[in-house]
Amino acid sequence: MKQSRASIAIDMDETVADTLSRYLQWYERDFGVHISAEQTAGHKIYSLVDAEHAATVRGYAHHPDFFRDLPVYDDAVDVIRALSAKYDIFFASAAMEFEHSFTPKYDWLRQHFDFIDPMHYIFCGYKGILNTDYLIDDHAEHLDSFRAQGLLYTAWHNLGREGYERVDHWQAVANYFDL
Amino acid sequence: MKQSRASIAIDMDETVADTLSRYLQWYERDFGVHISAEQTAGHKIYSLVDAEHAATVRGYAHHPDFFRDLPVYDDAVDVIRALSAKYDIFFASAAMEFEHSFTPKYDWLRQHFDFIDPMHYIFCGYKGILNTDYLIDDHAEHLDSFRAQGLLYTAWHNLGREGYERVDHWQAVANYFDL
Repeated sequence: MKQSRASIAIDMDETVADTLSRYLQWYERDFGVHISAEQTAGHKIYSLVDAEHAATVRGYAHHPDFFRDLPVYDDAVDVIRALSAKYDIFFASAAMEFEHSFTPKYDWLRQHFDFIDPMHYIFCGYKGILNTDYLIDDHAEHLDSFRAQGLLYTAWHNLGREGYERVDHWQAVANYFDL
Repeated sequence: MKQSRASIAIDMDETVADTLSRYLQWYERDFGVHISAEQTAGHKIYSLVDAEHAATVRGYAHHPDFFRDLPVYDDAVDVIRALSAKYDIFFASAAMEFEHSFTPKYDWLRQHFDFIDPMHYIFCGYKGILNTDYLIDDHAEHLDSFRAQGLLYTAWHNLGREGYERVDHWQAVANYFDL
């Protein structure tokens, strides 16, 4: 990138958008079983549920409504707004995994982060194509393919992963970047 | 990108997909005026039409049907298939300009380039975020922001642009990469 400021790519699901709560909510709705976020520690949700429900749960994110109205994580808006004064901010979501997610994800970003130009949204699959200086993401695999400094955003599913620079919440991101 | 093979990002509109013919077709349909592709040389279509029609023509690409069933350029499929044996191929479209284009673009790529994994599609705005080794694109501005080797895919609108490595058609791309 030909640039003067450093740049940060920020993942969406489980980095700024609370998809886990939507999974747990729909699972309880469909099967009457309550699972707490804490119980998912170290696991993906579909590896925790009864085997005969796993396919249904895997399918949730392919539903057009799944990504609508997701809660935004505490402090994400304020911290990203402050970051945007010093850094070029991009949102980079592996939206290609869920082909009905494009418009809901676009609308969600417009709603919560109206100070970021949509020309700075990236819907991709493989994140090794990103040419930013930082990537904040809850998936260690995306950080593995990334060329520059990755920050693992702590999520219940990634608690067991070691060997990554971690940020546990958005205040920790603010601290990392000396805001 | 942590990779062993070189990588090529390929734009969609007017690089593999013939959007110009759709513009000209819809303009004639709406206003009864025929403009040939040759007449657009050196210009964007909406700067050529009558001033009172320009807003309508600018709006065409925001219509959900605009990107459906676009013709694919001659030899694009065969050459990209051959390139994919030697290079990591990505499609990178500035889809964020047209928020209704996501699904039609996704479907179009699946239809014509089923040998490229959707995880290698990138819907973005600003192309300076691409970390590939090459970018083939008809917009000089995207090549200007790109970090590595750009190839200007010749289109009627960019005929006047100088100072870029050019490929005039897909056989020229094949020649450039010694296929």
